[in-house]
Amino acid sequence: MENTLQAQLISVGTELLRGEITDTNATFLASQLPLSGIKLNRMTTAGDNLKDLCQILRQAVESSDIVITTGGLGPTQDDLTREAVADLFHETMTIDPQLERNLREMFSRFNREMPPHNIKQAMLIPSAKSLRNPRGTAPGWWVEKQGKVIVLLPGPPREMTFMWQNEVLPIIKQRFPVKSILTRTIKTFFIQEAKVAELAHPFFQTDNPTLGIYAKPDGIQIRFLAVGDNASRLLDEAEKKLMEKLSTYVWGKDDDTLDGIIGTWLIKHGLTLATIEDFTGGSLAALITNSKSSSQYYHAGIVAPNDRSKINWGVTAELVAKFGTVSPEVASAMAIHVKQELEADFGISITGIDKEGHIYIGIADRSGSKTWQQQYQAGRPDNHERAMMATLFRLRDRLIELNLTNE
Amino acid sequence: MENTLQAQLISVGTELLRGEITDTNATFLASQLPLSGIKLNRMTTAGDNLKDLCQILRQAVESSDIVITTGGLGPTQDDLTREAVADLFHETMTIDPQLERNLREMFSRFNREMPPHNIKQAMLIPSAKSLRNPRGTAPGWWVEKQGKVIVLLPGPPREMTFMWQNEVLPIIKQRFPVKSILTRTIKTFFIQEAKVAELAHPFFQTDNPTLGIYAKPDGIQIRFLAVGDNASRLLDEAEKKLMEKLSTYVWGKDDDTLDGIIGTWLIKHGLTLATIEDFTGGSLAALITNSKSSSQYYHAGIVAPNDRSKINWGVTAELVAKFGTVSPEVASAMAIHVKQELEADFGISITGIDKEGHIYIGIADRSGSKTWQQQYQAGRPDNHERAMMATLFRLRDRLIELNLTNE
Repeated sequence: MENTLQAQLISVGTELLRGEITDTNATFLASQLPLSGIKLNRMTTAGDNLKDLCQILRQAVESSDIVITTGGLGPTQDDLTREAVADLFHETMTIDPQLERNLREMFSRFNREMPPHNIKQAMLIPSAKSLRNPRGTAPGWWVEKQGKVIVLLPGPPREMTFMWQNEVLPIIKQRFPVKSILTRTIKTFFIQEAKVAELAHPFFQTDNPTLGIYAKPDGIQIRFLAVGDNASRLLDEAEKKLMEKLSTYVWGKDDDTLDGIIGTWLIKHGLTLATIEDFTGGSLAALITNSKSSSQYYHAGIVAPNDRSKINWGVTAELVAKFGTVSPEVASAMAIHVKQELEADFGISITGIDKEGHIYIGIADRSGSKTWQQQYQAGRPDNHERAMMATLFRLRDRLIELNLTNE
Repeated sequence: MENTLQAQLISVGTELLRGEITDTNATFLASQLPLSGIKLNRMTTAGDNLKDLCQILRQAVESSDIVITTGGLGPTQDDLTREAVADLFHETMTIDPQLERNLREMFSRFNREMPPHNIKQAMLIPSAKSLRNPRGTAPGWWVEKQGKVIVLLPGPPREMTFMWQNEVLPIIKQRFPVKSILTRTIKTFFIQEAKVAELAHPFFQTDNPTLGIYAKPDGIQIRFLAVGDNASRLLDEAEKKLMEKLSTYVWGKDDDTLDGIIGTWLIKHGLTLATIEDFTGGSLAALITNSKSSSQYYHAGIVAPNDRSKINWGVTAELVAKFGTVSPEVASAMAIHVKQELEADFGISITGIDKEGHIYIGIADRSGSKTWQQQYQAGRPDNHERAMMATLFRLRDRLIELNLTNE
C-alpha cells in the first residue's frame, strides 16, 4: 500500500484541553477515513493559540497528504483556525461577497442582527473554496495548495458530521477515487487477548490484509482490512486461516451481536425468553430490550436483588439455607420458575454476589435445566458486562445443542 | 501563573486512529491536570508505530515538563510505548525480577499459564520506576530524566484511572506541590445548558475562581475551580451567588448522585422501593442496584416490555384499550401494583415507546399515586438515561414534599 493517502486530524479548542468535552468528532472522522482508503496517521488536539496551531498545522502538512481540522471557526477572537491556515500558506483573508450575503441572510431569518465580529465567518483565502454549512453560521474551507489538501470543519458535531457527509465526501470521492476496501471482524469469547495474539500474529504479518485485535465487552475481536480488487478473496482466506486456530471461540462476525444472534434463532423457531437476575441487577434485561426485535421473543424480566425477593420466584428459604443463594440449585430454581411463571420457552438466571465476583448461570428449557459457574475478579466494574455475555454465550451454546439455530 | 507546569498527553493505539474507540482517557486526564495546577498544552494520538511514537514523544518532551501516555503497554508486539521511551532516552529495557514475580503470581492466581509474550510487562529501563496496577497485568512507568517527567499508563480506563488516583497523583503532589486548588461542582436538572450559561456567565468572568459548564447525563453541571489560600471562601461565595440564580434547578453537588441522595433518605426513614419499567428495559433497576447500599431499600424490579407482561402487574387489557399503554392511567396502575405486590413503600414506573420518545413516570406511595409526562426527541441514544434521571428527580421531589429528607 505504497501510495495510500495519509491524513492527520487536528481538533481545535481549549475546552478539549480542559477535559470539558470528549472529542467525538475525532472518533467519527477516524472511523470514516478508512472507508475512503485514507490512512489516519496522527490526531492532535490544540488549544485556541495561534502559534501552537500554526506549528501543528505545518507538521501535519509536511507529513501527510490531507489535513482535516475541526473547531476554531466561530466568530470570536479565540477562533483561529482560518488565521492559522492563512498564515501557513502566506495568504490574506478577504471577505467573500456571496458568503457575506448568506451569513446576513441566516441572521435575518432568525430576526437577529449580525454581530460585527461574525464577518470573519464570511472570509476566504485565494486557495480556499467554501463548504456549505446549513446547520450553522461557520462555512468550512477546502484548501488545495502545493499538492496538499486542508479541510476546515466547524466543531459542533451535528454541523461537522453533516458537512462531512454532504460536502467533503463528494469532493474526496471525486478527487481521490479508491480501490475497493473491505473489512471483516471475527468475534470470540472465553479467550484472552494475549492468547488470540499468540495464535493469530504469526500468520498475519502481512500488509494486505492487515490484522487488528481489540478487547471489547463482548470478547476479543479480530479485524482484517484488505485493499484492492481481490480484497474479498483475501478476507475469505484470512478468515479461513484464522478459523483453523480459533473456531471454538468464535461466535460471530462483523455486525453480529450475541443477543442479536440469539434473538434471530429464537424468532425463527417461534420461541420465547424470560430472565431473572440479581448480580447484574437489570442490565441483562436492559441489554435484551435495547434491540427492537426483542419484542418478538422476550416476555419479561425480574430483578430480584435479595433473598426476600427471590422467594416470589421459586427460591424457598430452605433452598437458600441448604445451598446458599449463590449456588447451582438456586440458579436452577430461578431459571425454572421464571420460565414457568412468565410462560416462556427459555428461562435464564444469574445469581451472584458482587464483592465475591462469583456467579452461577442457569438455563431452563423443555428438557430441564443446566447451570454454569463463572469466577470474576471481585469488584471489577465490567463484571456485570462479562456475566451478561457469558450468560448469552451459554444460551447460544444451548440453542446449538438443541439444533435451534438458523441452519 | 508564569511558571505553571506544562503537560502533554499522548494516547497510543491504532484502534484510536481507526475510530474504533473514543478516547475517554484523554478527557479524564485533561480534566484532572488543572486540579494539580498543571496546564495541558497539547494532546496527540499515535498509532502502534515506533517511529511515529518516538517522534511525538521527542516533540512533547521538548515543549513541556510532563508527558503522560496512555496505551501501548499490553503484551503484544503492537504495544510499543515502553520501547519508544527506552529509545528516546537511549536506555535498555531489562526484566525486573520483582515485577516478573508479581506478574507470574497474577496469572497463577487465576490458574492461567503466563503467555511468553507477557514478560514484556515486567520490563523497566534504569530511569523508570514502576507504578502498581492492581487491576491489570501492565504496570506503569514513572520516568524522570533530563529534568523531564514521562508517565506511562495503560489504556484500559479502569486501570488507568485507578493508577492515576493511587499511584501517579501522590507522586505529583510530592514532586510538584501546588498552591491549594479546590473545586466545587453544582448539579442541576430540568434546565438547558445555554440557559445555565446565560444565567451564570455574566457573574463569573473571573480568573479565580474559573467557571466551567458541562452537560452530563444527570443534568448540567457548573464547576468552579479556585486557587490559593482563600480558595474555600471563594468557592463558598461563588456557590452562594450561583444559587441565587439557579437554586430551583439544583439537586446536589460534588460527588452527589441522584440515586445516592434518594437512597440515603429512604434508608434514614426505613422506607423501601420497587420499580417497574418498559421504556428503560431494566436500566433503572440496574442503576439502583449498582450502588451497594440499595440492598437496604430496594426490594425488586420488574421489566415488563410488552402489554402481555404488564397484565401480571395490574395493567388490564381494558385499561390499555381505553387509555393506551403510554398513558398516565397505565403508569399509575403499574406503580401502585408494583408497590403492593413487592411490598414496598414506594412503587415507581416508567412506560413509554422508544420510537416516539414519549413517556409517563408514575410514583405510588402511602397517599396515592402521581404521574408526569416527559417528551424526548425520538431515537436519541441518551433518552433512557434522561428518563431514569427524570424519574429519580421526580421521586426526590416527592420525598421533599413528604418531608422524607435528611433534615
